[in-house]
Amino acid sequence: MARAHWGCCPWLVLLCACAWGHPKPADLGGQDVRNCSTNPPYLPVTVVNTTVSLTALRQQMQTQNLSAYIIPDTDAHMNEYIGQHDERHAWITGFTGSAGTAVVTTKEAAVWTHSRYWTQAERQMDCNWELHKEVGTTPIVTWLLTEIPAGGCVGFDPFLLSIDTWESYNLALQGSNRQLVSITTNLVDLVWGSERPPVPNQPIYALPEAFTGSTWQEKVSGVRSQMQKHQKAPTAVLLSALEETAWLFNLRASDIPYNPFFYSYTLLTDSSIRLFANKSRFSSETLSYLNSSCTGPMCVQIEDYSQVRDSIQAYALGDVRIWIGTSYTMYGIYEVIPKEKLVTDTYSPVMMTKAVKNSKEQALLKASHVRDAVAVIRYLVWLEKNVPKGTVDEFSGAELVDKFRGEEQFSSGPSFETISASGLNAALAHYSPTKELNRKLSSDEMYLLDSGGQYWDGTTDITRTVHWGTPSAFQKEAYTRVLIGNIDLSRLIFPAATSGRMVEAFARRALWDAGLNYGHGTGHGIGNFLCVHEWPVGFQSNNIAMAKGMFTSIEPGYYKDGEFGIRLEDVALVVEAKTKYPGSYLTFEVVSFVPYDRNLIDVSLLSPEHLQYLNRYYQTIREKVGPELQRRQLLEEFKWLQQHTEPLAARAPDTASWASVLVVSTLAILSWSV
Amino acid sequence: MARAHWGCCPWLVLLCACAWGHPKPADLGGQDVRNCSTNPPYLPVTVVNTTVSLTALRQQMQTQNLSAYIIPDTDAHMNEYIGQHDERHAWITGFTGSAGTAVVTTKEAAVWTHSRYWTQAERQMDCNWELHKEVGTTPIVTWLLTEIPAGGCVGFDPFLLSIDTWESYNLALQGSNRQLVSITTNLVDLVWGSERPPVPNQPIYALPEAFTGSTWQEKVSGVRSQMQKHQKAPTAVLLSALEETAWLFNLRASDIPYNPFFYSYTLLTDSSIRLFANKSRFSSETLSYLNSSCTGPMCVQIEDYSQVRDSIQAYALGDVRIWIGTSYTMYGIYEVIPKEKLVTDTYSPVMMTKAVKNSKEQALLKASHVRDAVAVIRYLVWLEKNVPKGTVDEFSGAELVDKFRGEEQFSSGPSFETISASGLNAALAHYSPTKELNRKLSSDEMYLLDSGGQYWDGTTDITRTVHWGTPSAFQKEAYTRVLIGNIDLSRLIFPAATSGRMVEAFARRALWDAGLNYGHGTGHGIGNFLCVHEWPVGFQSNNIAMAKGMFTSIEPGYYKDGEFGIRLEDVALVVEAKTKYPGSYLTFEVVSFVPYDRNLIDVSLLSPEHLQYLNRYYQTIREKVGPELQRRQLLEEFKWLQQHTEPLAARAPDTASWASVLVVSTLAILSWSV
Repeated sequence: MARAHWGCCPWLVLLCACAWGHPKPADLGGQDVRNCSTNPPYLPVTVVNTTVSLTALRQQMQTQNLSAYIIPDTDAHMNEYIGQHDERHAWITGFTGSAGTAVVTTKEAAVWTHSRYWTQAERQMDCNWELHKEVGTTPIVTWLLTEIPAGGCVGFDPFLLSIDTWESYNLALQGSNRQLVSITTNLVDLVWGSERPPVPNQPIYALPEAFTGSTWQEKVSGVRSQMQKHQKAPTAVLLSALEETAWLFNLRASDIPYNPFFYSYTLLTDSSIRLFANKSRFSSETLSYLNSSCTGPMCVQIEDYSQVRDSIQAYALGDVRIWIGTSYTMYGIYEVIPKEKLVTDTYSPVMMTKAVKNSKEQALLKASHVRDAVAVIRYLVWLEKNVPKGTVDEFSGAELVDKFRGEEQFSSGPSFETISASGLNAALAHYSPTKELNRKLSSDEMYLLDSGGQYWDGTTDITRTVHWGTPSAFQKEAYTRVLIGNIDLSRLIFPAATSGRMVEAFARRALWDAGLNYGHGTGHGIGNFLCVHEWPVGFQSNNIAMAKGMFTSIEPGYYKDGEFGIRLEDVALVVEAKTKYPGSYLTFEVVSFVPYDRNLIDVSLLSPEHLQYLNRYYQTIREKVGPELQRRQLLEEFKWLQQHTEPLAARAPDTASWASVLVVSTLAILSWSV
Repeated sequence: MARAHWGCCPWLVLLCACAWGHPKPADLGGQDVRNCSTNPPYLPVTVVNTTVSLTALRQQMQTQNLSAYIIPDTDAHMNEYIGQHDERHAWITGFTGSAGTAVVTTKEAAVWTHSRYWTQAERQMDCNWELHKEVGTTPIVTWLLTEIPAGGCVGFDPFLLSIDTWESYNLALQGSNRQLVSITTNLVDLVWGSERPPVPNQPIYALPEAFTGSTWQEKVSGVRSQMQKHQKAPTAVLLSALEETAWLFNLRASDIPYNPFFYSYTLLTDSSIRLFANKSRFSSETLSYLNSSCTGPMCVQIEDYSQVRDSIQAYALGDVRIWIGTSYTMYGIYEVIPKEKLVTDTYSPVMMTKAVKNSKEQALLKASHVRDAVAVIRYLVWLEKNVPKGTVDEFSGAELVDKFRGEEQFSSGPSFETISASGLNAALAHYSPTKELNRKLSSDEMYLLDSGGQYWDGTTDITRTVHWGTPSAFQKEAYTRVLIGNIDLSRLIFPAATSGRMVEAFARRALWDAGLNYGHGTGHGIGNFLCVHEWPVGFQSNNIAMAKGMFTSIEPGYYKDGEFGIRLEDVALVVEAKTKYPGSYLTFEVVSFVPYDRNLIDVSLLSPEHLQYLNRYYQTIREKVGPELQRRQLLEEFKWLQQHTEPLAARAPDTASWASVLVVSTLAILSWSV
């Protein structure tokens, strides 16, 4: 089962790296975790016995003369979601948390993971494994230096270490008389043997032209043109991220959970196109679509996926310069290219081009959001009727919203594991309910739904938080401050090429004002039937500057440990802003079309501008989604939409706030004193 | 004459690196610049003949077997202001602009500088020198590779290259078969010979205890305690920045224009204190204050300034670890310490400690700002009376405000070269008037004064922009939007440890809204009788996170090329904020006490909260400065202050804005519809 890295791609500084607090799952007692200090150790039933596989791994290490072997938790493409056959880390350790690094020496075995997984690790790992409550390479190297002798070798699979991670290990080990040894055959896979799940082999298909922004030929020409303009004149671009190849050729498959990708690399040179993938997965139509029967500059030559390293090494023998995106290219590729033949940027030209959607891609993404709103509204209407009956739980709710999405045109499944969280569960960072472990929805508590769909025209992601009973004043205040944050960032006008990091605090100011905050990032890019968390767009420090045509989520929140969680997430298009004085300015156009919960809005906290913005947004929702509901004869939903998008008006405040300010100001106008 | 790097220290990413546009000085015609393409070349009188000195430099290069020699524009301490004896770059090139790098080969000589200096360079350099209109090491290395043969050596003075700059040259030259050669004897100095101005030799004095936050013994103990707590257990801290040594020992002198420092290094070890400076500059009282007659751990051993490299090299032979701030330590020190004996941080513990002022330092800095306000108010009152007479110009104005500051208690001169700019000159980034070249102040245009003082208790920096006649609606709008930016950032409540970069956009939002902006940073730290631009506090990406007790300027602006410039700069203390819900939050307390120009405020653009904030600030000014003016019998100034701090009240807007919003809201209240 794949695990979502919520709100982030794992191959860069993470949204998830922010401090969320570390709530414990409510249902875990002391006897659910191992105790290795008793004799015999106490092991709960959830523990996996790893003695046999560890012994076998150590034999493999011995044949390679290794003192230690590093087992990261990623795959060769730094995918956000990992295929089952790549879950080596989980298989060898027993621990299925989605972030961790394991290291095995001849005598010891240890896992380093983030605080949010400590309890889970103690439930799943047997006493062969030490748990280290730290992350990063430094504590691992410190441990290695005490555990392995001088002269010892530390093995690793070069396709599972990014360039940065390798450099970090290498730097830390420098001068220590221990050697990092790159071994392309993964030793865990050797031990895993026939038990290892097969590599996916479903057909790779071309997207119909109606769902693509440009043909692959246009995209190839565009990238080649960027190669020519580049100061260092690269002769080739190497694409390592699966989304890069999928985007470039308008090809999709279903190798990765939630992401419509297939295992692949592309080496696009000035005179050839080499796509590394399993050729048997292409139909004759797709092969013909790719013009794969020739070798000219606009013919796609298909080579086997397993050949990529050798082919690149061979290509690098020539008078060439290979352009790579260093953030997500693995050391296994990097090490076979001589440094003077590398042209490095953080992101490849494909990643940079893909970030800016052309007008057709914008229209496609917007259309998918209208249908997505229909599915979410159907679910909210259904909840409003059924939650009071006491028959809905988080898991059945998640299944239902996934089902409603599945009924929308062009649907291709959810875009990530639905977060359906009631009451205190919504305050947990990575919560998703299971069939066995879930909470009933109730009119007495808040409910948070963070979900999205994959459609042939676009990928969606929206979060709404609702309350069907009587929320507390604090819940209303917190919700309204989150809403103000969403509005303040959404309506912000900012200069072209401003980085998201510089403006994300506008989504927090209303919370900060009262001493509240949230511990995650404020938003991420999103694709056209691609990644739901699409780099490099967003509000993190490692995101690129905002440009017209990008899409990003805007998702402030507030979480009260043990009580409730609020998040209001919309997807927004970056558009040109019309300013009083001429200049190159941008703002956001929200393309998620589901109203917020009126029951949770304290109107007295909203300024006249907030109200004006909100009412204009509600008018847009009516215009976009209303006709679609009517066309589909979803009349109950249409009525609900009308009710929930009635214009909001200023109201008497609970305490001193806007209206008192208005009174003061009105008096000031009367006195007219300046 | 030293040149100010406005709003920045040159040894880090610069405020000045932002895009200001490149206005040409209004008075330069074509014949003011050289023309090297005619025969003979045309050289204006401002050009310096460098043929003789270049020939002599090339002889020196030949004795060292160098193909090229790099001449940076900095000194050995990356001082913001450079002493005359360190102006090698200006002396050898003729070009006195404050940013540039010169490189001399056996045949060619070239200068790389920023666009704002291109015209000045063409006026001052003879045809021995090429002008390269680029900055950074990359274009220099690219040029070097075409100019010098394979196997050639590139010499440099290691005390004039920062670690980062050296690494940048080294990386770019790697694999090119050219070698960087560190030569500790500066070759330009050898040529400069007896013409070189002497190194300053004024007395170094101890600050009276009334003006220090802690004794030097307390500071030394504090740093040693940080050494002990450090994970890597450094045995010594090396202080390279002059302000570090000045701060640590509470010593001051006047070696550097505007900065009360003296040339020095400190090596503070766990068992000794070694101060590298010219011993003859200390009086016997100061030597006794430093406890310099012994060698124990709390005795300051004074060694000659010139010995620092050898002493550190000798110390580094032992089992030691030397902690340095890498941002401002020069390669000349760095290269003599083995890498495994270095403990590196961006800033030394002295720089980090100094950034947070203790309660006594806070009180001292605040007190200096009250007296500084008196000087500025005296000047503004004087201008109000004298500008209409047409007898005031920018230069005489600057002299007068400097004089008024000089009359304040504990004054020790200006803290930077006063920017006194009328009309279009205020839109120029680095403008300071001269006796020869200045503009008359007039009731018909705006006037910008950016100035500050050094006082024994504190360093000040304030900018006010005024208009004595009838400003245009656009000038008022721009001024008010700048003011709103200042207020919005000043009153912001934000979580402890937020970086300034994340919140500086609040100072821009009101400008952005209308399509306006400014091209410089939003603020910088400031010291207690130390740097006026004190790192590492501020709003740049390389500043450290905000903490209680830091002081920073807040200085949004707006500049209309060829017309006018606006900047409103205050110094603010970071203080704890009281929030509705408990949490660790901060806000700013403004400690500059000069009212803004009422004549330029369009009250209709201000929200009720802005008015409330402004009126509270004016009340504070009255409370702080009023009694001081009365005590000093400055009754005219007192009356002026009362007038200019009258509470502001809401006013009918020019167009649709606040009042219309109020009307809408009032109607909404009447309809009471939610």
